[in-house]
Amino acid sequence: MKNFTYYQPTRIVFGRGESEKIGGYLSSISRRVLVVYGQGSAVKSGLIERAKKSLEAEGIEYVLLGGVQPNPRLTLVRRGIELVREHGIDAILAVGGGSVIDTAKSIGVGVKYDGDVWDFYAGGVVPQETLPVAVVLTIAAAGSECSNSNVITNDTLPSPEKRGINYDVTRPVLAVMDPELTYTLPAYQTAAGGYDIMAHVMERYFTREEGVDFTDRMCEATLKTVIRALPIALSTPDDYDARSQLMWASTIAHNDLLSTGRVGDWASHRMAHQPSALYDITHGAALSIIFPAWMRYVYKSDVNRFAQFAVRVWEVEPDFNDLEKTALAGIERMEDFIRKIGLPLTFTEAGIPYSRFEEMARRATGGDTFKLGTFVPLTSADILEIYHSVI
Amino acid sequence: MKNFTYYQPTRIVFGRGESEKIGGYLSSISRRVLVVYGQGSAVKSGLIERAKKSLEAEGIEYVLLGGVQPNPRLTLVRRGIELVREHGIDAILAVGGGSVIDTAKSIGVGVKYDGDVWDFYAGGVVPQETLPVAVVLTIAAAGSECSNSNVITNDTLPSPEKRGINYDVTRPVLAVMDPELTYTLPAYQTAAGGYDIMAHVMERYFTREEGVDFTDRMCEATLKTVIRALPIALSTPDDYDARSQLMWASTIAHNDLLSTGRVGDWASHRMAHQPSALYDITHGAALSIIFPAWMRYVYKSDVNRFAQFAVRVWEVEPDFNDLEKTALAGIERMEDFIRKIGLPLTFTEAGIPYSRFEEMARRATGGDTFKLGTFVPLTSADILEIYHSVI
Repeated sequence: MKNFTYYQPTRIVFGRGESEKIGGYLSSISRRVLVVYGQGSAVKSGLIERAKKSLEAEGIEYVLLGGVQPNPRLTLVRRGIELVREHGIDAILAVGGGSVIDTAKSIGVGVKYDGDVWDFYAGGVVPQETLPVAVVLTIAAAGSECSNSNVITNDTLPSPEKRGINYDVTRPVLAVMDPELTYTLPAYQTAAGGYDIMAHVMERYFTREEGVDFTDRMCEATLKTVIRALPIALSTPDDYDARSQLMWASTIAHNDLLSTGRVGDWASHRMAHQPSALYDITHGAALSIIFPAWMRYVYKSDVNRFAQFAVRVWEVEPDFNDLEKTALAGIERMEDFIRKIGLPLTFTEAGIPYSRFEEMARRATGGDTFKLGTFVPLTSADILEIYHSVI
Repeated sequence: MKNFTYYQPTRIVFGRGESEKIGGYLSSISRRVLVVYGQGSAVKSGLIERAKKSLEAEGIEYVLLGGVQPNPRLTLVRRGIELVREHGIDAILAVGGGSVIDTAKSIGVGVKYDGDVWDFYAGGVVPQETLPVAVVLTIAAAGSECSNSNVITNDTLPSPEKRGINYDVTRPVLAVMDPELTYTLPAYQTAAGGYDIMAHVMERYFTREEGVDFTDRMCEATLKTVIRALPIALSTPDDYDARSQLMWASTIAHNDLLSTGRVGDWASHRMAHQPSALYDITHGAALSIIFPAWMRYVYKSDVNRFAQFAVRVWEVEPDFNDLEKTALAGIERMEDFIRKIGLPLTFTEAGIPYSRFEEMARRATGGDTFKLGTFVPLTSADILEIYHSVI
């Protein structure tokens, strides 16, 4: 186990009806708030209207910034920074999922910085402070409500570029998590969100670090929870039990508890960011194509770990005379699961051509000399092979 | 799953050598600190000397308060409050385990209160603020380094009384956790600490709440980790892997992550506090007597949950035609484990007479009308029967 620090200061308020009380929860943090949201579902469902009423009841003023898209854009972040400066805003409330929260986080650090906010993503500038960010979560997926990560796509470049940063300063101060808000999600978004949760765990699970039994088991607990709950949420969208397990798992999967003492891989995420940047494919669907392909490409380098994954997570009966077969059976069960929840396993299924694989592979490594990932460091040539394996 | 709030603001620094850097970690928190420690092992090992050097290197002044006993006493808490007021101290550093940390927490809230600190424990007064408390942890056990709990024994009463409180304000701001510090612990302390960890998980595991699959699985992950690591730590005291798994498990077992969305039982803890108050028996050893006895007394009320415990935690093969047999086999395996790690299963083994069982049972409920625990609410008569079952 490696030395680590763990710092999770976000105050979490979880359960039915809690989103109705957002004004009360915000009253000690803010007098004038920027409310950031997406492309309409939060408006259509009445959630924004209810949030406004709750803010008004506490005498909190607000400015609205809707229109956040999946794979959220730098242009809207810059617009948010202007609004905050213009209106003397003292906090940001994200009402939505990962894209909305990431936009809010990016505005939060951008406001406190004199240069251009993209410097944090492409220029190596480290954000030192932020406006407080609070969240009303509407999808179990990215875990951004408690994580130190955010990912922004620079839509002002000739070819859009998607980049992530990880700084503790960006962790929200408050996350209000109401599972009932996820009842109305389209099945595809529920599935993609669920697979994103699993991917966050698996990026951490596949490590070379030894002496990490406890975090291994917590990872397995989280994966098994999603594997049980996700099909229920798809067949019975208003099953509170399934929705609440998924929502709490989404946070724990990505608040860094599961990476304490270990180094994750994260190659699959970076490989999945490239088709999302170019073709705007949903993050969880890009991951459902890439992750099994990555597994098949690297599993031979640590058959025992993949066998453990197969046995403990996917309940494969171990064949101790052929652990490779056991390992492969685990990957197969995951692929079956991906099919069952309606996500793609190939680029073709997702409607993505293979004309730009070389560009994607180059971008994933950021250059020919840099290798991607820690479990098996990958070259551009490796990545190209992985992309081609799931045409 | 119940609605919940989760708030874990303690900054955790974990790993080899981190305790040497305590001065640096404290430098942003304190200029003059009260260093609280126990009865000699932290002095003998040189830990206090190294902590002093590290504080001096950062120009942090300190006042020492040693002598904290297991089942920590109110008299020393009061002495600490006086010292803080006398010397203009701005933070408290606990160097030790649960008793030392609980003393520091109690001093922290006591200093900020005009009345007597025992009012928090016996008078229902709610502490509103605290001096910051930092910790260098020396034993994996109580989980007090991140919990909102502390337990103090009032040694000024004719018959000593042990009482606990749970308030978020008492969570330490910093916990430095260095598993190597636990290499020199006596085997009995290691075992009692390990069983205390398990007890913290089991108090949460046995709940009537439904829809708690995720926290069930995380509880099981924590228990399995301790069951694997504890015998290794006993046979090879300097096994870093085992010591680090135990130390991280001790925190997670009691920082409330595992009780999110569920109500725990806690009857066994309260029953175990009584012999500790009267006979000064180590907390973990009192629990190893009480918890199996409690299980045998209540398991029939929810055979399925005890069968799940047996199968998932103790790897009992389920007998689906006789789940009661399965449930009992789990309890038996736990009793075997307690024997194997050298803890008592009966009062006689612990050298405790049964002359005061009635007094203990009365105190555990705090009166004849109050019932103890939530899984099966227990009367004084039930508790008396449980005590008698493990004479």
